[in-house]
Amino acid sequence: MSTPFHKVAIIGLGLLGGSIGLAIGEYLPGVATTGYDRNRATRRRAAERGLVQTVADSAEEAVAGADLVILCVPPGAMGEAAMDCAPGLSAEAIISDVGSSKVAVAKALAEALPNHTVIPAHPVAGTENSGPDAGFASLFQGRWCIITPAQDEDAAKVARLSALWEGIGARVEIMDPAHHDRVLAVTSHLPHLIAYTIVGTARDLEEVTESEVIKYSAGGFRDFTRIAASDPTMWRDVFLSNRTAVLEMLQRFTEDLTELQKAIRKGDGETLFDHFTRTRAIRRSIVEMGQDTAQANFGRD
Amino acid sequence: MSTPFHKVAIIGLGLLGGSIGLAIGEYLPGVATTGYDRNRATRRRAAERGLVQTVADSAEEAVAGADLVILCVPPGAMGEAAMDCAPGLSAEAIISDVGSSKVAVAKALAEALPNHTVIPAHPVAGTENSGPDAGFASLFQGRWCIITPAQDEDAAKVARLSALWEGIGARVEIMDPAHHDRVLAVTSHLPHLIAYTIVGTARDLEEVTESEVIKYSAGGFRDFTRIAASDPTMWRDVFLSNRTAVLEMLQRFTEDLTELQKAIRKGDGETLFDHFTRTRAIRRSIVEMGQDTAQANFGRD
Repeated sequence: MSTPFHKVAIIGLGLLGGSIGLAIGEYLPGVATTGYDRNRATRRRAAERGLVQTVADSAEEAVAGADLVILCVPPGAMGEAAMDCAPGLSAEAIISDVGSSKVAVAKALAEALPNHTVIPAHPVAGTENSGPDAGFASLFQGRWCIITPAQDEDAAKVARLSALWEGIGARVEIMDPAHHDRVLAVTSHLPHLIAYTIVGTARDLEEVTESEVIKYSAGGFRDFTRIAASDPTMWRDVFLSNRTAVLEMLQRFTEDLTELQKAIRKGDGETLFDHFTRTRAIRRSIVEMGQDTAQANFGRD
Repeated sequence: MSTPFHKVAIIGLGLLGGSIGLAIGEYLPGVATTGYDRNRATRRRAAERGLVQTVADSAEEAVAGADLVILCVPPGAMGEAAMDCAPGLSAEAIISDVGSSKVAVAKALAEALPNHTVIPAHPVAGTENSGPDAGFASLFQGRWCIITPAQDEDAAKVARLSALWEGIGARVEIMDPAHHDRVLAVTSHLPHLIAYTIVGTARDLEEVTESEVIKYSAGGFRDFTRIAASDPTMWRDVFLSNRTAVLEMLQRFTEDLTELQKAIRKGDGETLFDHFTRTRAIRRSIVEMGQDTAQANFGRD
C-alpha cells in the first residue's frame, strides 16, 4: 500500500505528539513530518530528539502543505490550537486529534474549522510521563485507536486516517463519539479520578506519615501512584470535557463501593468473597487479549 | 552471623509460604525448612518445586523440632492453624505469621497458643498470584517486613526474627500492631477494596460491554485489574479482620472523592489541577525509595 498521507503536521510535541512523530519516522518513513509546540523549550528539545523532521516556529507554518494535521494538545486547548493552524491549512487537509474525550473535542474542532474535514481520533495508549522526552516510537504497537467520524463522513478519508494509525502499529475501531466517551469514562477517566483521589487521601492523613505511605506502598498503593502522576493539565481538561459520562460512572462506582462497605461493616464474608472471585476473570481476559503483561507485578520487580 | 534459627516450619505453602521457603533455601542454606499445607494437591506441588526441604503430612509433624514456625494462611484461618500445630510445638519455639492485619491475628494466635512466644509479622510484599506455583525466592528483596511484638516481648527473640527476615532480603521495621493496621489500611487494604470495586463496576455496566472494557483497558483500567486478581479468601479475611481501620480510611477516601466530584460538576478546573499536581510528588518519592520501578508503565510494554 502507498502511504496514506504525504506530510503529517503534529501540533503539540509531548508524549503523544512526540510518539506519533517518532512512530511515523520508524514505520512509515515515506511520510514527511513537521511539528510545532507553543512552548519554546519543547520545540528545542523536539528538534534535538528528532521527534519530527522539521520543527516550525508557528502552527500556521507547521501545517503548510500538510494533508493531515494531528492536534496533540490537552482537550481544553484543541479549539485554540485549531484556530492557530487555520491560516496555513490546505483546503483538502484532514484535521484529527488524540484527545481523550470526543464529543466536546469534535464540537470545538468543528466550530474552529467549519470549512475543513475534521475526523477526531483517540489512541488508547500512554504512560504516566509527559513532555518532549516522554515519547517513543513503539507506544501504539498493539494498542487500540478509536476513530469517531461524523456519520456522513467520506469513508475514503476515514480509511486513510485508519491506515496511518495501523501503519504505526495500532488497531483501529470506528465508534460513535458519545459511546466513546462512556467507554473511556469507565476504562480510563474513572480509574484516573480514583487514583488521584486515593493518592491525595493517603498524603493528607495525620496519623499515618507520608514516609510510611511511601515505605509500605508495595502493598498495593504504588499501583495507583503511576496514573496519579499523569499530566495535570490534560486530566483537568478530560474531566471537564467529559463531565456527564464521568459523573455517571462515578455514581455507579460509589453505589458499588457502598455495597462492599456495608458488607465489611456487617461482617458479610460471603458477599465479599463472591465479588472478589468474579473480578479475577477480567484480568485473565485482558492478558489474553494482549492488553497487559502476564508477568506478576507487571514484571517490574 | 550464625543463622538465627536451626529449623523453620512453614504452615501454608502458597505465595508467601512458598516464597519464604525458597528464600531460606537460597539465602540462608544453613537453616532447615519443613512445611505443611492442608490442601493435598498443594503439598504435592510444594514437594515437586522444593518449596521446603521436607513436606510433612500434618501441621503437628511439620513443626516438630522447629525453633521458628511461620503461619502463612489467610488471617481468618490463623487461630485454627495455630491450634493444629500446638501438639507438636517445642516449648521454646517462636510462632510468627505473615498476616496482613495484625491486631486481630495477634489476638487469635495468643488465644490459640497461650503458653508460647508469639511474635506477629507482616512482609509488605506479594503479587496477584496465589498457590504453590506463585512463590519465588526474591520476593522479599528490598521490601519491608513489619514486626509487631507485644510491648513486653524479649528483645533477643525479636532480634532473631528480624535477622531471619533480613537474611532473606527484607528490611525490618518494628511497629505497634494498631498502628500497623492503620498504615496498611491505607497503603494496601483500601487500594485493594477500590480496585475490586471498580473492576466489578466496569463488568456490570449494561451500556459498555465487557469486551470494550478489556479492549480499551490500557487507558488506565488495567492497572486496577492486577490487584483485583488477588486471592479472594485472603482478601475477604483482611477486610473482616481489619474492619475498623479500613472503614475509617474508606470514609476519608469517600470525602475526598466527593470533593473532586463536586469540582467536576461545578467545572472548577483550578481545584482539579491543584489536586493533580500535588499527587505527582508521591510517585517520585516511591521510585526514589526503591519501592517501584522508574520505567514508564512499570516497564511492562
